[in-house]
Amino acid sequence: MEPHIDLITLAVSDLERSFEFYRDGIGLESCELIGAEYPGDDLTPAGAAAMFKLAGGLMLMLYPRSELAKDANIAPGTAHSGEFSIGHLVATRADVDALLARADHAGAKLTGRPHDRPWGIYSGYFRDLDGHLWEVIWNPRFTRPAA
Amino acid sequence: MEPHIDLITLAVSDLERSFEFYRDGIGLESCELIGAEYPGDDLTPAGAAAMFKLAGGLMLMLYPRSELAKDANIAPGTAHSGEFSIGHLVATRADVDALLARADHAGAKLTGRPHDRPWGIYSGYFRDLDGHLWEVIWNPRFTRPAA
Repeated sequence: MEPHIDLITLAVSDLERSFEFYRDGIGLESCELIGAEYPGDDLTPAGAAAMFKLAGGLMLMLYPRSELAKDANIAPGTAHSGEFSIGHLVATRADVDALLARADHAGAKLTGRPHDRPWGIYSGYFRDLDGHLWEVIWNPRFTRPAA
Repeated sequence: MEPHIDLITLAVSDLERSFEFYRDGIGLESCELIGAEYPGDDLTPAGAAAMFKLAGGLMLMLYPRSELAKDANIAPGTAHSGEFSIGHLVATRADVDALLARADHAGAKLTGRPHDRPWGIYSGYFRDLDGHLWEVIWNPRFTRPAA
């Protein structure tokens, strides 16, 4: 297997609302709604999804929970935190605080105050509108390559 | 918010077993176990994790479910599919079949046979040892940039 991940798809309960959270609330601006021409039915998933273009060619997708279950041929379930987290590196401690404050203002839930971890990072988590965990991280030993 | 994701952390029930699944079972070879020097306690998460270096600077981490819950300050839960999926693009239809077969052989569960989707891709899903969904995708309109 080649070492790459090309898409991360998050199950959402309200596509439009989550799209607005990511685009306007926390500012992921390079985005579009796609796939509305595929309406789906009881067995075939609908195609409507939100797509955010990220650095390195990675795509973040938002897709209705019911349609992901159909597409993956699994039983639909209810929202559930703690299966995974998405890590986002920032350049300073203050940037951690600022992005968490922005997410909170946009309707996400902070799970606590950001703090220093034993392994030398400063971070805090928010849960998006569907409970998906994002960890906002300042790691003094690691700076992202320039875009 | 700058448009990047730097880490994807998957909650696992057995770190060593899942590390072997990803390293040996499906062949993500650029990896290491890190953080064993941080034992943690009832309140502080332990640091032991598996790290896989992927294209574009992305890191895939495996981290015990209990420790992710402590680190994120959320209630621990049981494994639960359908919150998200990870998409992995391959170059041909046959590569979809081959990678799914490899994952199946390594202990993952296929959720069905790969098939063509209305939006023009050919894909199928596997669930890893903890139920996390991976979609293996051939998209004739999109080829990954060379590494």
